[in-house]
Amino acid sequence: MVHRDPTPPDLEDIRAAARRIEPHVHRTPVLTCARIDEFAGVEVHLKCENLQKVGAFKARGATNAVYSLDDRVADAGVVTHSSGNHAQALAWAAGLRGIPANIVMPTNAPAVKRRAVLEYGGIVHDCEPTLEQRLATCRRVAERTGGTVVPPYDDDRIIAGQGTIALEFLGQVPDLDAVVVPVGGGGMIAGIAICVKSLAPGIEVIGAEPELVDDAARSRRSGRIESHRGDPTATIADGLRTTLGERTFPVIRDRVDDVVTVSEEGIRESLRMVMERAKLVIEPSAAVGVAALGSERLRSRGFRRIGVILCGGNLDLDALPALLRG
Amino acid sequence: MVHRDPTPPDLEDIRAAARRIEPHVHRTPVLTCARIDEFAGVEVHLKCENLQKVGAFKARGATNAVYSLDDRVADAGVVTHSSGNHAQALAWAAGLRGIPANIVMPTNAPAVKRRAVLEYGGIVHDCEPTLEQRLATCRRVAERTGGTVVPPYDDDRIIAGQGTIALEFLGQVPDLDAVVVPVGGGGMIAGIAICVKSLAPGIEVIGAEPELVDDAARSRRSGRIESHRGDPTATIADGLRTTLGERTFPVIRDRVDDVVTVSEEGIRESLRMVMERAKLVIEPSAAVGVAALGSERLRSRGFRRIGVILCGGNLDLDALPALLRG
Repeated sequence: MVHRDPTPPDLEDIRAAARRIEPHVHRTPVLTCARIDEFAGVEVHLKCENLQKVGAFKARGATNAVYSLDDRVADAGVVTHSSGNHAQALAWAAGLRGIPANIVMPTNAPAVKRRAVLEYGGIVHDCEPTLEQRLATCRRVAERTGGTVVPPYDDDRIIAGQGTIALEFLGQVPDLDAVVVPVGGGGMIAGIAICVKSLAPGIEVIGAEPELVDDAARSRRSGRIESHRGDPTATIADGLRTTLGERTFPVIRDRVDDVVTVSEEGIRESLRMVMERAKLVIEPSAAVGVAALGSERLRSRGFRRIGVILCGGNLDLDALPALLRG
Repeated sequence: MVHRDPTPPDLEDIRAAARRIEPHVHRTPVLTCARIDEFAGVEVHLKCENLQKVGAFKARGATNAVYSLDDRVADAGVVTHSSGNHAQALAWAAGLRGIPANIVMPTNAPAVKRRAVLEYGGIVHDCEPTLEQRLATCRRVAERTGGTVVPPYDDDRIIAGQGTIALEFLGQVPDLDAVVVPVGGGGMIAGIAICVKSLAPGIEVIGAEPELVDDAARSRRSGRIESHRGDPTATIADGLRTTLGERTFPVIRDRVDDVVTVSEEGIRESLRMVMERAKLVIEPSAAVGVAALGSERLRSRGFRRIGVILCGGNLDLDALPALLRG
């Protein structure tokens, strides 16, 4: 592994990332919605990373990683294995810099995701749909091309890039009591926790994840990285089906205040509420953060002003009614 | 009729409306989307009235009308006939002021629209689904309650209220070459044209309407208010099925630079593009303005920076795939 540094990235790394990515990504708006305030019983501020480039916060980390590379290293391109927003974001960011992006995708990835990577100029490498094969193919492609591997979340450049969300958000909304962040692999919440606890330690950082993939909550309880208990594809929040990584777990253990879990029904209801009332297209993973606002565990804390990260908006519109019905 | 004044509202009326409604409505954000710029071949700025209170620009005119009333007159409430966004907006605005809103709705109005009016505290009066019956019932309710009739578009208070969109938009985006505005009854484009031609007459004001309800384009050619040639419900842009009114037509004739018509397929494609790429929930009427960006008639004008009003976001999510398929 490249990153053996025992200390995680710090506020300076996040500030450097912000300067690096600022010419390329959106400073996303913060919106409010009376219906969501009513649902939460508090004032809610939505940080709209669904309006980010490529439709998700992943554009931040990918851009930071791509622009962190020395010219000579960059020329050989970047490599990753992913079938989600990180694949699209990396292909897009590499295209910005004019370097190749080699994306290893399982043969069973949806055609729409493959097409999106190709549209952003990425080179798709097929592999068998097992984690083992994905890692092996990724390694092989990296060796052959000399490209730099950019993992989707367990990487300091990615964590620092995602942390820029908080840098912006704290500047946009004063006096937040808490920030609610959906947790998958943990890159986003790790970056946000580092930033928030450096700048405004009184603000609580709360993770939100589906009950069906509650590995972050269990990992915090057990003190080690837990794997899933059941089939992770059982949740509709497809962006949150990964488990924590070696770089993200210690940050989440030490600097996140709580992790709340939500039901699939709660996710579906919040997906509908955000689209019908806030008029924003979000993906189910983003609805997880909103659903958490309804949990007793969060309500009992007495917050008055909460920020929620709407992490992405990449949704298959044709599948929406089925998603909403459950 | 109450409004016999031959001169339409002016910039001062719009400024007064802006002061009147400012405590109650959103200053809506302006967003951009690289995919839409590419589609249009120019820089496009989206004025997000889909993010307005009640999910549509109608909140502006309704609030202006409700807060224009003297206390004594206001106490008797307001009355309108509408089954669309104006009904919801008027019920909402009346609720803000704590006065009754009597909404006359045809018995065949969708249950979801009736429910929305009731949720905002409006009183629903049923009538037979003919224009004649709607007008008669509206008159009867107004006589009985002593309430003030607030028509959906053919009213100077409404026109001035909608004009505040332009006041904001010109302050948010400098150097627009043109503003594209969907046209139904014409209240929004009349207000916007009055404001734009007073403040920045070099900016062109372009109407956009479905080919299937092209009454505004034909009215401009013939010099009088034209009715529909076919069944207005044939267009999916349900907010644009009305014809121009006596107050809106002269403004549209004299101060609007052009009216462009778009196909149903163009509306569907733009609806999908805005939701998939700009991540905004809009209703088909708002897609009409975006679709107009693709018309040769608009492209041939050599604009470099165009503003488009995304007029509303009240969409039945469960019906979306059918809408997108056509």
